[in-house]
Amino acid sequence: MDRLSDAGSTGAGAMRFGANYVPSKGWFYSWLDFDPEAVRRDLADIASLGLDHVRIFPVWPWIQPNRGLIRRDAVDDVLAVIDLARAAGLGVAVDVIQGHLSSFDFLPSWVLTWHQSSVFTDRRVRAGLAEYVSELAGAVGTRDNCFAITLGNEVNNLYPTNDVDPAAASAWAAELLDVVRAAAPHLTALHSVYDDAWYAADHPFGAADAVTLGDLTTVHSWVFNGATAIAGGLAPAATSHADYLVSLAAAFGPPDRPVWLQEIGAPLPDVGADVGLFVHRSLATVSPNPALWGITWWASHDIDRALVDFPDREYDLGLFTVDHRPKPAGKALQEFLRSVPGRAPDGRRTGLVCPVDPVLDPLARAAVAPGSPFHLGWVRLRESGPVSIVAPGKARDAEHLASRGISELAVLGTELADFPC
Amino acid sequence: MDRLSDAGSTGAGAMRFGANYVPSKGWFYSWLDFDPEAVRRDLADIASLGLDHVRIFPVWPWIQPNRGLIRRDAVDDVLAVIDLARAAGLGVAVDVIQGHLSSFDFLPSWVLTWHQSSVFTDRRVRAGLAEYVSELAGAVGTRDNCFAITLGNEVNNLYPTNDVDPAAASAWAAELLDVVRAAAPHLTALHSVYDDAWYAADHPFGAADAVTLGDLTTVHSWVFNGATAIAGGLAPAATSHADYLVSLAAAFGPPDRPVWLQEIGAPLPDVGADVGLFVHRSLATVSPNPALWGITWWASHDIDRALVDFPDREYDLGLFTVDHRPKPAGKALQEFLRSVPGRAPDGRRTGLVCPVDPVLDPLARAAVAPGSPFHLGWVRLRESGPVSIVAPGKARDAEHLASRGISELAVLGTELADFPC
Repeated sequence: MDRLSDAGSTGAGAMRFGANYVPSKGWFYSWLDFDPEAVRRDLADIASLGLDHVRIFPVWPWIQPNRGLIRRDAVDDVLAVIDLARAAGLGVAVDVIQGHLSSFDFLPSWVLTWHQSSVFTDRRVRAGLAEYVSELAGAVGTRDNCFAITLGNEVNNLYPTNDVDPAAASAWAAELLDVVRAAAPHLTALHSVYDDAWYAADHPFGAADAVTLGDLTTVHSWVFNGATAIAGGLAPAATSHADYLVSLAAAFGPPDRPVWLQEIGAPLPDVGADVGLFVHRSLATVSPNPALWGITWWASHDIDRALVDFPDREYDLGLFTVDHRPKPAGKALQEFLRSVPGRAPDGRRTGLVCPVDPVLDPLARAAVAPGSPFHLGWVRLRESGPVSIVAPGKARDAEHLASRGISELAVLGTELADFPC
Repeated sequence: MDRLSDAGSTGAGAMRFGANYVPSKGWFYSWLDFDPEAVRRDLADIASLGLDHVRIFPVWPWIQPNRGLIRRDAVDDVLAVIDLARAAGLGVAVDVIQGHLSSFDFLPSWVLTWHQSSVFTDRRVRAGLAEYVSELAGAVGTRDNCFAITLGNEVNNLYPTNDVDPAAASAWAAELLDVVRAAAPHLTALHSVYDDAWYAADHPFGAADAVTLGDLTTVHSWVFNGATAIAGGLAPAATSHADYLVSLAAAFGPPDRPVWLQEIGAPLPDVGADVGLFVHRSLATVSPNPALWGITWWASHDIDRALVDFPDREYDLGLFTVDHRPKPAGKALQEFLRSVPGRAPDGRRTGLVCPVDPVLDPLARAAVAPGSPFHLGWVRLRESGPVSIVAPGKARDAEHLASRGISELAVLGTELADFPC
């Protein structure tokens, strides 16, 4: 199994395709009733589509119910999943701090109520988290099919329940990434945030963290963030959203830093009935992006409707039903994988100059959000072919543009007057 | 094993003595790593002292991690503990909603953060709790050594995190007690609150609930509530506090309603080094109380110092160490049990008229709190012999007084002018 560091080069390298593993039986509650046979069956489903990896989600408070207690049996269950994935021919990326999963926050009693403390800023809690991250990272690092460790799934969803400011949010992630690197130096260490980091002016987690912390940039494309509200679930604004987010990440990160589309899914209430078409269009649009390292679909399996209180859009995200039948998304993904062209040599691309820099100027982030004039302009231009995004400070940097294969620069008319060209 | 309903008559009935079962290995986190042999060993410790029952504490969110999922294996673990207790000759009282344990609140993700809801007032959460209580009560009700079900340990500690007003607090408990009775009609159904219900004017959980809801009244005597601050851990104000609380409960409840001293413990930082003396004095003072059904010591075992973040006073409450050595409290309790006299026929008792009625007038509750003139007066009088408390409205009710064996009425001088005699 290739390590991410081996396979992570962009350009001609093979793209990685995987699934975010949502257990069919008992969702993530199944960690409490670990059933290797059920996991084996789920992983066989995933491998049958031709996918090469899974992203998995241990649940923090069940592994570390007391700050001083990391349950060895629970860690062993995580290792057992990794070993079962290996047997199925799958690599594994592990998210450590869950933390947030599909609207539910899992937090231990030692940070709640009488012990209320921000997981981001409280020194005692951060020390406990560091021990947890170190122990789990060290353990999964012993498995050669484990290629990456992400701090936690969209940890910024733990805000505002856990207060934090931008400096503290960065420091928290940087500190824990150092813990990961110390415990598992050979693994790719990653940070993961949902897209308020890119789009919400007042959000304490910044786009700067996304493109500088960790060994590559991860993005999560969820079209219920406003993208489907523009013109429906199958319109370009929706089906190009993943490519847009990868393009933003590529524009504002260091040169050649790969971008992992770590989550993309097709929420039925937002996308509409023709999920297969959404899958095909989204994958076809994003996959030529030269910055893209790989794509990990959310999710492998549906959520059993016997489990209640999830937002409606979370139930039907699976590539498979809970009884292992492939769904339209799964079939569309499989079909795409069979036909996906190898990485073409970088073609010449149009670059669209962004009027703001969401990394340098977080307060301007709404100017790149779905529905913003810039986003709508990019979507229009994207209908005619690949469109890179160019940071405003790089628009006159010929070397930068050439290195990204950008042969032609566009500026949206409405922003033209403001642009320092 | 006698049911509480058989053994619950006061007067000449044998008093029940038990322990609140705190597992020696892994505290209540041990539910996540259930180890029957460790439980068997702990229960053997408890039985060796001559105790007749344990009170046990399943952890709600690990049994019902989703509102729609009650884990059968977790329920079976609770039943296994009850069966192991039977083998050790012990009866079992089960507290259902934990909920609160030694400063930690255990709450499922479906009532927290993005799903934030008051467990007391949210209709959806109450429906989920009703299912949980019904299923667990029904299950434990199949065991003939299980004699009582308490809604949860000091559920009023879940306030103020979970908002509630007095009417809603009462309705919540009454509703769930009906659920218990429907699921396990042959068991004693109980409500449990910590003593703010008696002492804090603004507390939404009322003394009225304590003395009317459930099949008997439970009280929890914790001398760090101000009792040891008066004159130290071995002074009468501390060592008579359990008797005081039982006396309050007897005074303001229906006639002949038994009172279970469901928790009493000797917190070292408050009581001081001579725990054995505290145990002896407390038990000797409270045990002649005619209202008393039984005494359940907190706790069976210490908390391992490897488990962190507990308040310091929680670690050393055990009758045994975590490696099964009897501690001074255990030895003192055992010694007391060997020498405890049988219930004497009710002697003639002095009754002290309370200046306020904390049941009818919750805002006046501070007037009976530890350190209040009434409490201090009662403590002084109690040094000369047993002192019942008489509700202000019953001071002229000769039949009431006679039925309680009260031959002599006292009124504190400072309150005399206000008392309607």
